[in-house]
Amino acid sequence: MISEKMKALVRGSSVIRAMFEEGKKMAGEIGRENVYDYSLGNPSVNPPEKVKESIKKILDEKDPNYIHGYMSNSGYEDVRDRIADSLNKRFATHFNRNNLIMTVGAAGGLNIALKALINPGDEVITFSPFFGEYRNYVSNFEGVLVELPPNEKGDFRPDPEALRNAITVRTRALIVNNPNNPTGVVYSKEDIKNIAAVLKEKSAEFGAPIYLISDEPYRELAYDGVKVPYLTKYYDNTIVGYSFSKSLSLPGERIGYIVVPDEADGAKELISACNVANRILGFVNAPSLMQLAVAECLDEKCAVEVYDKNRKKLYEELTGMGFTLVKPEGAFYLFVKTPEDDGAFSAKAKEKHLFLVPGKSFGCSGYVRIAYCVDYDMIIRSLPAFRELAAEYGLC
Amino acid sequence: MISEKMKALVRGSSVIRAMFEEGKKMAGEIGRENVYDYSLGNPSVNPPEKVKESIKKILDEKDPNYIHGYMSNSGYEDVRDRIADSLNKRFATHFNRNNLIMTVGAAGGLNIALKALINPGDEVITFSPFFGEYRNYVSNFEGVLVELPPNEKGDFRPDPEALRNAITVRTRALIVNNPNNPTGVVYSKEDIKNIAAVLKEKSAEFGAPIYLISDEPYRELAYDGVKVPYLTKYYDNTIVGYSFSKSLSLPGERIGYIVVPDEADGAKELISACNVANRILGFVNAPSLMQLAVAECLDEKCAVEVYDKNRKKLYEELTGMGFTLVKPEGAFYLFVKTPEDDGAFSAKAKEKHLFLVPGKSFGCSGYVRIAYCVDYDMIIRSLPAFRELAAEYGLC
Repeated sequence: MISEKMKALVRGSSVIRAMFEEGKKMAGEIGRENVYDYSLGNPSVNPPEKVKESIKKILDEKDPNYIHGYMSNSGYEDVRDRIADSLNKRFATHFNRNNLIMTVGAAGGLNIALKALINPGDEVITFSPFFGEYRNYVSNFEGVLVELPPNEKGDFRPDPEALRNAITVRTRALIVNNPNNPTGVVYSKEDIKNIAAVLKEKSAEFGAPIYLISDEPYRELAYDGVKVPYLTKYYDNTIVGYSFSKSLSLPGERIGYIVVPDEADGAKELISACNVANRILGFVNAPSLMQLAVAECLDEKCAVEVYDKNRKKLYEELTGMGFTLVKPEGAFYLFVKTPEDDGAFSAKAKEKHLFLVPGKSFGCSGYVRIAYCVDYDMIIRSLPAFRELAAEYGLC
Repeated sequence: MISEKMKALVRGSSVIRAMFEEGKKMAGEIGRENVYDYSLGNPSVNPPEKVKESIKKILDEKDPNYIHGYMSNSGYEDVRDRIADSLNKRFATHFNRNNLIMTVGAAGGLNIALKALINPGDEVITFSPFFGEYRNYVSNFEGVLVELPPNEKGDFRPDPEALRNAITVRTRALIVNNPNNPTGVVYSKEDIKNIAAVLKEKSAEFGAPIYLISDEPYRELAYDGVKVPYLTKYYDNTIVGYSFSKSLSLPGERIGYIVVPDEADGAKELISACNVANRILGFVNAPSLMQLAVAECLDEKCAVEVYDKNRKKLYEELTGMGFTLVKPEGAFYLFVKTPEDDGAFSAKAKEKHLFLVPGKSFGCSGYVRIAYCVDYDMIIRSLPAFRELAAEYGLC
């Protein structure tokens, strides 16, 4: 009854989402305290109090038809002004409202950017491991996702040589996710400069711009003083996709934006195309009240210290048990090497009520992802299960 | 720099949206009171007070990570329960949470249903005039929108014979919009039964279900005691797309749902496909706080009397001036015959600061659409401009 393409998609579906549903079910059966659900990137930190205050203030002070009505498909002008100002202050950029489109989260933003750019058969490159939905987003527009394997060092940093070799005349874009889901690695200024050099070289060679799509929901989540570079400063043809999902703990609200700088080739045309795509893909506009609310909260800080405590504890404990992993500098994920096939390992972990997502969901077998955006207490309760698992594999 | 498909879409863009932007600009130049913007279906009635109260109550009483966090891609279970109960009470249906998916407005709902159903080249039929975005929604998935011309009587009711003749082996669905945008016509029980009979006959002939997609953002807006039939009761293979945009005056919030009844062929598979489509098209889920808020407001009534007053006044005045139009029974639109080409007429109207959308945007030249979801005072102020227009065409 459904389309051929959807049949495969329903079969494949999302392992993460399936785990999340399974975890909820198991929690109902054996008690929430006995399930260690590390599957979903659902923030455990509360949104800043200012979110609630702002929503109430907006409801009390503004005309309800302004708050809840249609506005331009790109979003409220003054909301875009305020976000542009905030970015300019933080990153010494020079955006204005016309460089921004408010979107239904980063997922909405990526989809409209891809719809704007991709002809059927065009290629979009990404470095593995990557957020598995990129496959679907690119496939929505009949594009082909080209997945570059991790470099040999295993530090999950981008490999400029591999990128150079992968670019063809059909390459329209490279998607990077910084800080990275699922590894937690933060690409440095040097990493970005290396990528930019290759993209510039290859754009010149093929006579058409290759866009850099920077998926940045984890921008505010960086640890140990690590800086997350702002990519438009290193490469003109950058489209930034941002979300308030993690920074303000609002993933259910679907609120974010994309930025297309004036320096991008065909910037005006590209912005128009993204605006039209936002409308016709069915988003129409980003949710209105939430646009107004986040504009009030641009200076709010995410309580990264909570995630940092989780990160340090889990990293220390897991390495102590003999697991191998790169110490993450951002986001709220650990990407842990599995002593056997990641699917089998994940299944064995589930027997101990540990929900860990197999790396193949991120285009990188041989690992599991641990989303540590959870209560610290759950981490403590889960350690015996991890220890048993390590012992079974003879790691400790 | 943008894809071939988007180039055409940006050129075509939305006449309605362009008018809305132009109207805002003109209002800035010559004063809001001198512009008669009838372009956009943006409710003028305030949302019920209960919307505001509910949002505040939810913010005060529930856990913020529940309010703003991820839930199942289909939406909160209890929200779907409550909507199912409400529908069952109102329409003697028997839905449960599994028949519903919360969506980013009706536009989001239609897009996920179409993604679930359409193979490239599949045909989707609709009766002209129709909401112009259907072209884009169907084209998003490489489908073909088959536009049936209005019947000869000119009453804008569906013509079952024309439908029968248009259905081919590639027909996957018929989209109806009831009450109709742009005509305001409400399809009766008889109309629906006639459509259902043809769809059943043709489904049997071609050995595959033809789905009826019912786009119902205007369901609560009906006048003169007219009833809007609930389509799942007349045809099993119905997918209902609903939105709270007009009933609760929340168009900017992007909140609605789709219903797939158990009786639909492949109902389970179809629901799964819609759920996956909701995620991968980038919606992920309907905005969370608004899901919770609308669930509190299911018994709220839209102040249809406000629109009714506008409807009566404009209908009476315009017919009095010599314009020809079908008296609308629902929605908040009038569809008026133009004495010359609708584009030329609309341009002449604009010289008098009247913003009326040409019928060709709705697949039906020779008419303009008047969205009367405006302040009554604006209607009164605009009457001299309408009268001048009528006089210029020698109508009065």
